[in-house]
Amino acid sequence: MTYVRNAWYVASWSQDLEPGTPSAITILNEPIVIWRSESGALNALEDRCVHRLAPLSLGRCEGERLRCMYHGLLFDPDGKVVEIPGQDMIPERACVRRYAVSERHSWIWVWMGDAEKADPDLIPQAYGFDNPDYLLAKGQLDYAAEACLVNNNLLDFSHLAYVHEKSFKAPQNFAYERPKITTLPRGVRVDQWVRNRPGPGWARNGGLFDGLSSYEFLIPGVLVMWMGSFPLGTAEACGSEQPDYAEAVSGVTVTSQAVTPMTERTARYFFSAGPHRAHGDDAARDSMMQTIHQAFAEDKVMIEAQQRVIDTTPDPRIMPTTADKGVTIFNQLVQKLAGAAPARSHAA
Amino acid sequence: MTYVRNAWYVASWSQDLEPGTPSAITILNEPIVIWRSESGALNALEDRCVHRLAPLSLGRCEGERLRCMYHGLLFDPDGKVVEIPGQDMIPERACVRRYAVSERHSWIWVWMGDAEKADPDLIPQAYGFDNPDYLLAKGQLDYAAEACLVNNNLLDFSHLAYVHEKSFKAPQNFAYERPKITTLPRGVRVDQWVRNRPGPGWARNGGLFDGLSSYEFLIPGVLVMWMGSFPLGTAEACGSEQPDYAEAVSGVTVTSQAVTPMTERTARYFFSAGPHRAHGDDAARDSMMQTIHQAFAEDKVMIEAQQRVIDTTPDPRIMPTTADKGVTIFNQLVQKLAGAAPARSHAA
Amino acid sequence: MTYVRNAWYVASWSQDLEPGTPSAITILNEPIVIWRSESGALNALEDRCVHRLAPLSLGRCEGERLRCMYHGLLFDPDGKVVEIPGQDMIPERACVRRYAVSERHSWIWVWMGDAEKADPDLIPQAYGFDNPDYLLAKGQLDYAAEACLVNNNLLDFSHLAYVHEKSFKAPQNFAYERPKITTLPRGVRVDQWVRNRPGPGWARNGGLFDGLSSYEFLIPGVLVMWMGSFPLGTAEACGSEQPDYAEAVSGVTVTSQAVTPMTERTARYFFSAGPHRAHGDDAARDSMMQTIHQAFAEDKVMIEAQQRVIDTTPDPRIMPTTADKGVTIFNQLVQKLAGAAPARSHAA
Repeated sequence: MTYVRNAWYVASWSQDLEPGTPSAITILNEPIVIWRSESGALNALEDRCVHRLAPLSLGRCEGERLRCMYHGLLFDPDGKVVEIPGQDMIPERACVRRYAVSERHSWIWVWMGDAEKADPDLIPQAYGFDNPDYLLAKGQLDYAAEACLVNNNLLDFSHLAYVHEKSFKAPQNFAYERPKITTLPRGVRVDQWVRNRPGPGWARNGGLFDGLSSYEFLIPGVLVMWMGSFPLGTAEACGSEQPDYAEAVSGVTVTSQAVTPMTERTARYFFSAGPHRAHGDDAARDSMMQTIHQAFAEDKVMIEAQQRVIDTTPDPRIMPTTADKGVTIFNQLVQKLAGAAPARSHAA
Repeated sequence: MTYVRNAWYVASWSQDLEPGTPSAITILNEPIVIWRSESGALNALEDRCVHRLAPLSLGRCEGERLRCMYHGLLFDPDGKVVEIPGQDMIPERACVRRYAVSERHSWIWVWMGDAEKADPDLIPQAYGFDNPDYLLAKGQLDYAAEACLVNNNLLDFSHLAYVHEKSFKAPQNFAYERPKITTLPRGVRVDQWVRNRPGPGWARNGGLFDGLSSYEFLIPGVLVMWMGSFPLGTAEACGSEQPDYAEAVSGVTVTSQAVTPMTERTARYFFSAGPHRAHGDDAARDSMMQTIHQAFAEDKVMIEAQQRVIDTTPDPRIMPTTADKGVTIFNQLVQKLAGAAPARSHAA
Repeated sequence: MTYVRNAWYVASWSQDLEPGTPSAITILNEPIVIWRSESGALNALEDRCVHRLAPLSLGRCEGERLRCMYHGLLFDPDGKVVEIPGQDMIPERACVRRYAVSERHSWIWVWMGDAEKADPDLIPQAYGFDNPDYLLAKGQLDYAAEACLVNNNLLDFSHLAYVHEKSFKAPQNFAYERPKITTLPRGVRVDQWVRNRPGPGWARNGGLFDGLSSYEFLIPGVLVMWMGSFPLGTAEACGSEQPDYAEAVSGVTVTSQAVTPMTERTARYFFSAGPHRAHGDDAARDSMMQTIHQAFAEDKVMIEAQQRVIDTTPDPRIMPTTADKGVTIFNQLVQKLAGAAPARSHAA
């Protein structure tokens, strides 16, 4: 499992973290407890009591602190034990790891790397529920597969023409035309025009458009996408440049997605999506989310099956295609930022 | 897991393989996809796309070909990739393994060994649904146990007196008298007379007979059995020779059974059975199959429990009895044909 | 898994072992079959036929003997095979291990160590259903955790103030005051006064008492506890001595509990409890057992979660507190009697 530790990982939806109720998540094999204190402060600690390794996520919030509910040790938000019931002396080593934690764009982000490098500017810019321009809905699902396989899926939309034949009804262009890939400092940008096609299902009016999907896929595994329909000819006129988003005439939607590696073979997938208020309403949003749930179930079937094949293959190697350009760039970036040796493949 | 690779393994019932619908089976730890093409041709390939190891069994049949439905690679029946969407060059190595596959006696057989040695004459002769003389029904069940344990069970019918006390109501003779065992080039033949007993449950008329059960158990794990009742005295008159089957007066039935090793701890068991048309009708067949389902459930409980004991035993060794003659001959044959070292046992 | 082999382990409730019906239990990873013979004799053998390792617990009791129901081998209570159907010669080695077994205090005890050291005097003295003074009820539950973690739980009642906040409504004293711990030859004795408190829920009458809970926790993992309420001032008057139990004025109850290690990650927990006939009735017993079931479910949630954290921790170490005195003494005794090296901890 090669992942970049110096990165912010999504641990929860903001809305799902009730004040005073600790919540457990495993990220990169590390058990973490996050909670909002009485004052509303957000905290994240190693989810493992120093005493006998009970999970603190079964604990009780007391003011700013968290008490282990096995034998009552009380922890400060910085991870230090401040009370051992019935014992005066608190050993120096009575301390668990504190994680930097931040709340932005409706997600709770946890920094998994060196504490002193936790830079909030590295949090990817996603569309949160606080964004006034979009009507969003959210969802999440767990994968019995390593996060890397989900990332790879999201980095190569050629699969839309096959896996999502029934749900997204994506045109064959996604398989036969290569998107424009731009390397970013912490990810890639993928722009793909599909010319001369109807708008999304909930916005079809008989007209044809040049559709653009444009997304960034960023370390550690965050996708932020904008889609919209432009008058015919826009793609041609733009050449390899991006259009002015404001000139989209129909079907403008966004989606934000985050893939969090839990263990070697499990990942949690957080996603939201919805139309621009000028281009759709609640019904459009609900229709869009229904399709997304169907499509992500299709991905799950394929990716978990892929994982099972990998796991029963003695020396699993892939054979990249030209559609893998984004996958390859991103994974090389992961290897570089993780300081790891490159993965083996059939490719020379 | 010592098994003979140069052998035909049952992968499916003929009837269960719908044209145009790929079907997955794991044999000897190898994932395999089998399908009938548009023209009706039967194909078997490694069930693992060269690109990113997605299973081809989630793919789509297109004419004679099979398309991976993850990113659209198209495979010829010989395993070669003939199309990578959006990419002109197809690498030489873009190829998965093809398996020889054959359809006989209502079973789909896959050859797991060296391709050039795939000799259809090595397919065991079983009773298929195309046999005009028998009224058959079929079933299958999966074992959480290695195939070898199921083979051993089928090679020693002394267990009938114990495991199947309730279902087959088999006489104690099976435990106390040893059958005649004949070594065959690729298996053993087991003949057992039970004298002076009533016919099978569905053919009892108060009369007593000399009953014969006679089966071959062949590499890799195929049982083909004939049973019938003869006039009293036939066993005595035959001595150690087989009678003329045509002289059976009652209760003639056949059964064909195949045990396919999937993984180290899973096996699939295919079976059919039924009476000769001259000796039974649909009701007799259904009654017989009902008893068989009950009996095979008894085997499953015993064998899966046996597997669990083996798996928690640090150095599992068996102590063969004289009832194990067929088991021992067959397993030595497996060792020889598999080119493996003999298994350890307490036996000197 | 470090456990004392030369010890009696609880295998079953007496009441649950039907005559003529073999029962399976795994203790210290060893599969064991126990049964009552026709004459009522209690037997325990290795649950693994010498022939092909089928479990004898699927077998049939025949008089004093047990027959393997796979191929019919018949075992004497001393573990020797006395019949192999259809075979005259019985090999010398046709023998499974016999375990010393004893029935006391409504429990079936199996000796897991050297046969010649099986001393019935080492069976802990518990309260059985044959005890005329108490009205008992019983229960049992299985843990997906190693027995040692359950033992540790029972050796440190400071957890009552946290884990059992809702069920037992135990006072904070259990967390903030340390009990008197006495080292015994094969365990520890734990005495704890809680002064000036109401009696147990089912015996509250508005009065306040000095409550005493006093238990022994003995090798291999048996807790036997007496609880009762004394007039205010008794604790003070007794100092560090025990009171005369006969002077308890209310709420006298007992509980017997046994933790049996099955595998590295499973344990079976047997328990009974109830009031003294002079202090409670059937309704009191039922009320007490209802609370106990609730409380033990709380323990199970915590301990199984603790086990999961331990299992995902690369180098799990504990940090003992002063509340761990009983745990530490007992575990050192286990190490000593098991002849094992001491476990690692953060403690110097």
